[in-house]
Amino acid sequence: MTLRVGVVGTGAIGKTHIHRLSYTLSGAEVVAVNDADEAQAQMAVDSEQIDAKVYKTGQELINATDVDAILVASWGPTHEEFVLASIAAGKPVFCEKPLATTAEGCRRIVDAEIAHGKKLVQVGFMRRYDQGYRALKQTIKQDTIGAPLMLHCAHRNPAAPGFSGDMAITDSIVHELDVLRWLLDEDYVSAQVILPKSTRLADQGLQDPHIILLATTQGIRIDIESFVNCKYGYDIQCQVVGETGTANLPEPASVTLRSEAKFSRGILTDWKDRFVDAFNTEFQEWIDSTLNGEMHGPSAWDGYVVAVSSDACVQAKREGRIVPIEIPERPPFYRP
Amino acid sequence: MTLRVGVVGTGAIGKTHIHRLSYTLSGAEVVAVNDADEAQAQMAVDSEQIDAKVYKTGQELINATDVDAILVASWGPTHEEFVLASIAAGKPVFCEKPLATTAEGCRRIVDAEIAHGKKLVQVGFMRRYDQGYRALKQTIKQDTIGAPLMLHCAHRNPAAPGFSGDMAITDSIVHELDVLRWLLDEDYVSAQVILPKSTRLADQGLQDPHIILLATTQGIRIDIESFVNCKYGYDIQCQVVGETGTANLPEPASVTLRSEAKFSRGILTDWKDRFVDAFNTEFQEWIDSTLNGEMHGPSAWDGYVVAVSSDACVQAKREGRIVPIEIPERPPFYRP
Amino acid sequence: MTLRVGVVGTGAIGKTHIHRLSYTLSGAEVVAVNDADEAQAQMAVDSEQIDAKVYKTGQELINATDVDAILVASWGPTHEEFVLASIAAGKPVFCEKPLATTAEGCRRIVDAEIAHGKKLVQVGFMRRYDQGYRALKQTIKQDTIGAPLMLHCAHRNPAAPGFSGDMAITDSIVHELDVLRWLLDEDYVSAQVILPKSTRLADQGLQDPHIILLATTQGIRIDIESFVNCKYGYDIQCQVVGETGTANLPEPASVTLRSEAKFSRGILTDWKDRFVDAFNTEFQEWIDSTLNGEMHGPSAWDGYVVAVSSDACVQAKREGRIVPIEIPERPPFYRP
Amino acid sequence: MTLRVGVVGTGAIGKTHIHRLSYTLSGAEVVAVNDADEAQAQMAVDSEQIDAKVYKTGQELINATDVDAILVASWGPTHEEFVLASIAAGKPVFCEKPLATTAEGCRRIVDAEIAHGKKLVQVGFMRRYDQGYRALKQTIKQDTIGAPLMLHCAHRNPAAPGFSGDMAITDSIVHELDVLRWLLDEDYVSAQVILPKSTRLADQGLQDPHIILLATTQGIRIDIESFVNCKYGYDIQCQVVGETGTANLPEPASVTLRSEAKFSRGILTDWKDRFVDAFNTEFQEWIDSTLNGEMHGPSAWDGYVVAVSSDACVQAKREGRIVPIEIPERPPFYRP
Repeated sequence: MTLRVGVVGTGAIGKTHIHRLSYTLSGAEVVAVNDADEAQAQMAVDSEQIDAKVYKTGQELINATDVDAILVASWGPTHEEFVLASIAAGKPVFCEKPLATTAEGCRRIVDAEIAHGKKLVQVGFMRRYDQGYRALKQTIKQDTIGAPLMLHCAHRNPAAPGFSGDMAITDSIVHELDVLRWLLDEDYVSAQVILPKSTRLADQGLQDPHIILLATTQGIRIDIESFVNCKYGYDIQCQVVGETGTANLPEPASVTLRSEAKFSRGILTDWKDRFVDAFNTEFQEWIDSTLNGEMHGPSAWDGYVVAVSSDACVQAKREGRIVPIEIPERPPFYRP
Repeated sequence: MTLRVGVVGTGAIGKTHIHRLSYTLSGAEVVAVNDADEAQAQMAVDSEQIDAKVYKTGQELINATDVDAILVASWGPTHEEFVLASIAAGKPVFCEKPLATTAEGCRRIVDAEIAHGKKLVQVGFMRRYDQGYRALKQTIKQDTIGAPLMLHCAHRNPAAPGFSGDMAITDSIVHELDVLRWLLDEDYVSAQVILPKSTRLADQGLQDPHIILLATTQGIRIDIESFVNCKYGYDIQCQVVGETGTANLPEPASVTLRSEAKFSRGILTDWKDRFVDAFNTEFQEWIDSTLNGEMHGPSAWDGYVVAVSSDACVQAKREGRIVPIEIPERPPFYRP
Repeated sequence: MTLRVGVVGTGAIGKTHIHRLSYTLSGAEVVAVNDADEAQAQMAVDSEQIDAKVYKTGQELINATDVDAILVASWGPTHEEFVLASIAAGKPVFCEKPLATTAEGCRRIVDAEIAHGKKLVQVGFMRRYDQGYRALKQTIKQDTIGAPLMLHCAHRNPAAPGFSGDMAITDSIVHELDVLRWLLDEDYVSAQVILPKSTRLADQGLQDPHIILLATTQGIRIDIESFVNCKYGYDIQCQVVGETGTANLPEPASVTLRSEAKFSRGILTDWKDRFVDAFNTEFQEWIDSTLNGEMHGPSAWDGYVVAVSSDACVQAKREGRIVPIEIPERPPFYRP
Repeated sequence: MTLRVGVVGTGAIGKTHIHRLSYTLSGAEVVAVNDADEAQAQMAVDSEQIDAKVYKTGQELINATDVDAILVASWGPTHEEFVLASIAAGKPVFCEKPLATTAEGCRRIVDAEIAHGKKLVQVGFMRRYDQGYRALKQTIKQDTIGAPLMLHCAHRNPAAPGFSGDMAITDSIVHELDVLRWLLDEDYVSAQVILPKSTRLADQGLQDPHIILLATTQGIRIDIESFVNCKYGYDIQCQVVGETGTANLPEPASVTLRSEAKFSRGILTDWKDRFVDAFNTEFQEWIDSTLNGEMHGPSAWDGYVVAVSSDACVQAKREGRIVPIEIPERPPFYRP
């Protein structure tokens, strides 16, 4: 049995996913593509050497009878429209982050999915599929370090070309916002943002780094350093401090060297290398569960909660104060 | 395009490969299976839920018109027969190690393949596909540590139920014999085996550990500790000492802990976990290259050279002396 | 030339220092001791087998003509009196922390020393003498990681018997307050204290852990986790994040093990083991500089600034808000 | 009580020890010095600002009535003479390695000391005083890794100016020969030396590296890589493989960095930095035990056994064969 996938959006990330579904994973076939730029969609079909039809609109692709499921990898502001259309068509849809550009947009998707009555939407928060985060979650569950009390995290990029305003939060820290609540199985209740002395190596006028402070329902305290022009590498750190010990997110395996009076090992510089295995696992599990008529990954509700939490962080940054995060009660539809 | 694979041998390893080809990798389909125990073959088809025909003999499976390529995972002593039959049928064949149980058997396969005139045979030395060994080879090639002078290696298993006689060499160290000559791009010229004080935790009468000493054509010296009842874990170590530095094989990524007055991280205990990614890469590359009509992996010649080298190690152990390793000149057919 | 030292206070720490001066370091001799409990002072002389006179009062000891320098290791509330008496006697005095129990007391010592006209006082902040902190400071100075922007620190004890109220700050975090401003060569301008969910493994009613947030004059941001009942060990962490890289305080050297499916190394559990070398260096440098008529270590001014900063942290904790830290201008007397 | 020491030999190492005894350690005073070059002896007294008499001959210094103990740090070929003279004078003597330049010379010292009837001689094998080796020995004793079966060691220097012939063994590996038999509490029974391909970065014609293979009485097998022009640093490695686990010699503590796409920490390049603490401990314990009329360190017998073992390694290298190491029975005088 093969899942026939239609891909909306054939930019860099869309093409990577087309390749992944066609040549790396098992059980799926890309049979339809669409892009705002039709020529680019055709080029993706040609360069990836797949047997897929190019559709003029995302809407047509979503409704095509030979398309079983949709993958949305288009420009962020179009996500909401295509996800809602997929729900309307009753088809499973995988949507790259953000689910929508506003919390309200995410909420509309949540409401539409509940109205439809069956879970169809998965959001592209791939860190939950990273072997390291999974092992860390397992460590917590097995009570190896006791009940978690604090998380110390860092999200560092070598550079952030094109970053401005609050993008360090809205484009980058959202990954932490998703994965940490998944890790702890708890929502956030407040946010504070600290603005350290800024690096001179970021674009003129850009605040970088930030420290984001979060509190969870139970009082667990999280600090996340966001440093998107750290120069030295792409480095994701997460330490859980529990009542009896600490556990750290694994670092990628690498050759260790002794040369020139130094012991060393490489640090990745490209985020795509860091999470390539997570992307593969994420899509293989999506294919497998979709073929089984199920949906296990990050839900529309998760997308909505992250959007609300991210909004609070942005507000906390702008207003220089501790901002409460108010998450509505989880609808029964989304309970495990 | 899909590679239709026939699998000969549906024991533990055969079933793992059937699952991998059917549900993990892209581009292959298992259409035929055979096992000395026909009921077991049928059970594999059922439990893996694949649409494959069960053949009474390996020979019939190999000759079936809808079988494009053969995977041999049967009992070692039958490998030679099935590989020769595949060559006779002009079909690509992937053979789990050993290629044959004797160097002479391997040589017969080499001769048959040369006579056939096209490379068809790949041997299951999966370590070449491990990301760590590949990164180590890249480190050497990039001259990061200068020209290699020595290799210090260890191959440790927690326990070796059923091991007897020289199996530590013939079943286990053969992996090092393959991957180290691939790493250095050099053959061995001599072997010596040192017998340390034996652990009391191995089966009665079993020598364990061994230290295998090898010299290569250029005079690089290799020491390999083989310790198959080391108790603590499955641990593969490889350090290359070059003229200006050293490089170590990466260790698997893992959560790091601080608890009970110890900093720690886990060590694997099962060899299958250690090389699961390597197995996947090995088969995906085999599928891809076979679909392209090419053969890039460990060749019949590699299988033959390893067999000759392994025989020398066994002789060196038995006779307590340095034994020369005489590899015939590589036939032009197998030159890059 | 030998420095003749009088020791006021012969409790646990006093006795350790007597032993250190008598049998480990070069250039000093303990010639006089005093303790509130005279019998205990005599026992220290006997058990350490030193040739020292027991004085009835600290004042008499300080004024004894054969005493060149004073070491104050008595009960905290008596420090101010003995340090002021030493200044009045014009003699060098090494005072274990705290210099005085209040910022006002420290200020009185500062004023007395300035009035005396020559530096005589050194405070027992031994971390500045730790090889690791010194190497970290060197790393910053050599611009290996660019200008510092953030510090992430942790101060963890396995248990804190007898701790109550704000002692985690006033008895423990004061070491960070001293060493971090020395490391950065900057004073603090504000403090905030976050109270995470408390561990159930501390004494009933004790808040533990705390997160202390500090800002420096230049806007460098510091977070310090204080966790005095962390169970697993005595663990001091300090990471400096600079514009181009990060540097971490070294961890103590230790045997690394592979056993029982774990790679591990020991973590110390006793703070005295962690800083024993620092104590030795601190006192050897004090002896050497005192014999040279100089005073290089942590000064009365440093003791005063730490007291003011510590008070602000306590206030920030109690009031749940960001508290400014106002350090008066450094008197010319204490400028380098 | 102060130990009045006379130092014979005021070259680089002699001066370092004079400084150590005068300004770092407790309980000793250098009261006499001698050097083949009298002017140099006077310069040492002046530059170190000590109150010591310069003697024209080592013999006179040894016999001076105000000299309690002798430290021999002169040119190797003179060691035997000065140690024998010290024994004749009935005075404790600390002799830098080698005890004598031949095994026969060492034996004469052993015989003289036995004839004298009281242990007076300590040899300068400082590694036994290194905290790391002591912790490793403790690990073995506590049975943390089971009974030792193998040792994998490396002794690497960045460069070896002036090294020729067999000096890698006689000047450098002798430290391993001493410390490993102390670690295991066993003597060696055979030696083999393997000559890998030589680095092009050593002096013309110098064999470098070597691999020394040793067997102990119980059959424990040791391999030592000696690589004295390894370029990258001064690096001492020692791994003990036991029946249930492995233990590695600690590496020196150092700042860890993340910069320029690398995680790194420094490796020392100067052997003096590596063992400075061991030298201090060695001499403090020598002072303390000598003042107590005892002698606990590496004995004349140890110096003799190392000389015999080293000779066997040199012979094994020259003759390209396994050479037995025959240690006479330990005289009762040297038994614990």
